[in-house]
Amino acid sequence: MTSAEATVSAYWAALEARDWAAFGRLLADDVVYHLPQTRERIVGRESFLRFNQEYPDGWHLTVTRAVTSGRHAATWLTCAHQGEELPVASFLDLDEAGLVREVTEFWPEPYEPPPGREHLVERY
Amino acid sequence: MTSAEATVSAYWAALEARDWAAFGRLLADDVVYHLPQTRERIVGRESFLRFNQEYPDGWHLTVTRAVTSGRHAATWLTCAHQGEELPVASFLDLDEAGLVREVTEFWPEPYEPPPGREHLVERY
Repeated sequence: MTSAEATVSAYWAALEARDWAAFGRLLADDVVYHLPQTRERIVGRESFLRFNQEYPDGWHLTVTRAVTSGRHAATWLTCAHQGEELPVASFLDLDEAGLVREVTEFWPEPYEPPPGREHLVERY
Repeated sequence: MTSAEATVSAYWAALEARDWAAFGRLLADDVVYHLPQTRERIVGRESFLRFNQEYPDGWHLTVTRAVTSGRHAATWLTCAHQGEELPVASFLDLDEAGLVREVTEFWPEPYEPPPGREHLVERY
């Protein structure tokens, strides 16, 4: 396992475990968390820790896929929350010390397919 | 550039160029395209080609980030369409011959942030 793979694996494991000390140790001081869908940005380890600690609880994360190359990683998680399963797509960059420096995260929601492609698709 | 990096780069370039011959050559016969948000699945090269060819045109794709490892890749695209810019998160798997065998794609949409975290976030 490369260092980035281990870091990203530990990052999600610490979050799922609500192990805030372990989670905080993986973050750069100046970590930036981007949520492009809401145009929100959280800057700095303390704010990002608080964001996660204060987030309404009850969620559980499973890593469905992780791809890592050098200091870059992308993960696809499944987030179970209130009887639903939502996908989460995250792009993570590590700094030179191997700490998580930038996270850009997407929370795609279900929607109805547009008409006109029924002849090509299966629904599941 | 690894083979998977080159393949994924060529995949998006061919799609952006509407070069259907080049795009088709990168696909496994039994390629499967998954859209978990709509629970749609498209199976086979011919159907997946037609899906892309028939998709209402006017879109332009830019690769914002690509992460590749072995036969796995993840990309974050920016899709410009009708004056909007939408992110696209895709997870691609290549087969043993280096052809694209599975693509799982997410199209996250903008939404309003829930209240209660204004003290931690910046909007942009």
